[in-house]
Amino acid sequence: MMRETPDLLSSADRALVDGVLARQLRPLAKTITLIESRRDDHQARAHAVLEALLPHTGGAMRVGISGVPGVGKSTFIEALGLYLIEQGLRVAVLAVDPSSTLTGGSILGDKTRMELLSQNPAAFIRPSPSAGSLGGVAEKTRETLLVCEAAGFDVVIVETVGVGQSETAVSNMTDIFCLLQLPNAGDDLQGIKKGIIELADLVVVNKADIDLAAATRAQAQLKTALHMLRPASPNWSPPVLTLSALQKNGIAEFWATVCDYRAAMSRSGEFDAKRRHQAQAWMWDLIDAGLRARFRSHPQVRAELPVLTAAVERGDTTPAAAALRLLQHLN
Amino acid sequence: MMRETPDLLSSADRALVDGVLARQLRPLAKTITLIESRRDDHQARAHAVLEALLPHTGGAMRVGISGVPGVGKSTFIEALGLYLIEQGLRVAVLAVDPSSTLTGGSILGDKTRMELLSQNPAAFIRPSPSAGSLGGVAEKTRETLLVCEAAGFDVVIVETVGVGQSETAVSNMTDIFCLLQLPNAGDDLQGIKKGIIELADLVVVNKADIDLAAATRAQAQLKTALHMLRPASPNWSPPVLTLSALQKNGIAEFWATVCDYRAAMSRSGEFDAKRRHQAQAWMWDLIDAGLRARFRSHPQVRAELPVLTAAVERGDTTPAAAALRLLQHLN
Repeated sequence: MMRETPDLLSSADRALVDGVLARQLRPLAKTITLIESRRDDHQARAHAVLEALLPHTGGAMRVGISGVPGVGKSTFIEALGLYLIEQGLRVAVLAVDPSSTLTGGSILGDKTRMELLSQNPAAFIRPSPSAGSLGGVAEKTRETLLVCEAAGFDVVIVETVGVGQSETAVSNMTDIFCLLQLPNAGDDLQGIKKGIIELADLVVVNKADIDLAAATRAQAQLKTALHMLRPASPNWSPPVLTLSALQKNGIAEFWATVCDYRAAMSRSGEFDAKRRHQAQAWMWDLIDAGLRARFRSHPQVRAELPVLTAAVERGDTTPAAAALRLLQHLN
Repeated sequence: MMRETPDLLSSADRALVDGVLARQLRPLAKTITLIESRRDDHQARAHAVLEALLPHTGGAMRVGISGVPGVGKSTFIEALGLYLIEQGLRVAVLAVDPSSTLTGGSILGDKTRMELLSQNPAAFIRPSPSAGSLGGVAEKTRETLLVCEAAGFDVVIVETVGVGQSETAVSNMTDIFCLLQLPNAGDDLQGIKKGIIELADLVVVNKADIDLAAATRAQAQLKTALHMLRPASPNWSPPVLTLSALQKNGIAEFWATVCDYRAAMSRSGEFDAKRRHQAQAWMWDLIDAGLRARFRSHPQVRAELPVLTAAVERGDTTPAAAALRLLQHLN
């Protein structure tokens, strides 16, 4: 679906578009900075650049990776990235990290975490945007993902740490969502947050080198848990793999499983359907957020919302009556 | 929190309020019919009656019951209801059944399903409102629940069948959400829908009389699955009980567990906090639904939405650009 670059681009922005399409890292980084900027004029330019790049997106496998701190996400992503580069692929690594908005830091801010990968010319690592709500961070990461696809990356890995709703955001922008687990199963598996295991298309027990027996037990328990849940697709039951990212054992098997998933989903038509559904859901999320922001900024709503919220909490009025009263101000 | 009945009530509506507070079944049924009516004037009257009843609500234990067809929900609810009445309690049974909006029927439409309970003067059984979206059905059931509390029922059971998002709606309006399961565990447990097991505060394996060994195996598997998930409260790990509703075995233990839950949640302050949170969330659900309805009815949005939806699906525009463009029509 090739299309001409729209004429409305300034020459500077046309240079960005051409640079990204030529797979140059500087224009790529500059475009992402434009996307992450909060200035209105930058946002308008970012939208125009993105529209021009859109016909060239969609070519990457979008892989979501999640797991609690300490599970070995960086080691795993570095091992996976280097393996994929050995196969002749180009790899981008992005992050959705809402905690970075609080700390100013980022799970990917310290590139020394993936030293070898970050130095490899076939890799591109971008830390999480360091300002904004989860919705804002996720939106910018999703747009960055599209820019990376236009820049010809074959695999885009989106990493997230298990904080709040970030796993849902990442699973909503990737083709396959992989959950990393520690081998000390048993009592400690209560740590899996509500709803997270059900997002997983693939579960990986990392650090199998430390205690293979424990890893195998964890694998069996996770299989049982997954077995209790109806899979998202009739054509894919989420498997549980064990591996050691540190010893680079099991990385090839992991990627083979990702490729199996892609093949199964593509055969059934679910691969493209999922992407279309994700784009729709994303649009509605943004519409809902926009409608809520407009609602909250209405002078009378602003004045009455705290009063009615308190009345609903106390049970002095019903949620329905309060909602109706607030909505009437929009007429 | 006693309060005078507002003066704005008509004498007919004041009679409804007084009748409900006097625990009379006819005014109760009439009030619910008013709530379920789609006529605007009825809705206005229903709101006024509800406001007058509100100070008298909150006294019941709100119990959600879910499970697939065939799990024995009616038999269980009848056994539980009769047991509670034996203990001197009054019991109301409501339903959220989105399928009734399609079939015109209702999971509780056939009162012969709970013949003994429906004939008992200490019980009140009301089928699911038979028209409207899930959101509409759930809203009316929630308001009906409040009316039942004002009518002095000690326990309100809200039943739902495992269809779509109805379990979430019921768990959002009850204090404890109980999931009924069949004893034929093993391979068949894949039937648990995504996200449902995580809503459960209590899981019950019914029909333990048919095959006790199978029920015990199912219990062990469900315990393992629940063990993998972080509980919603640090003060409650959802237990798994086995019972036979048909033989009335385990009903007393079930209710004792519900009371344990209530005691644990009350001690930690979570019981009231959960109700306050539910009321808030309910208000925002209604606000969001109202905002979306207004948005969709805007002439320019109506004209452009299908075009932009298709463009987003094809990847011709980003979800962000499409959302922005549609929202701008509201200015």
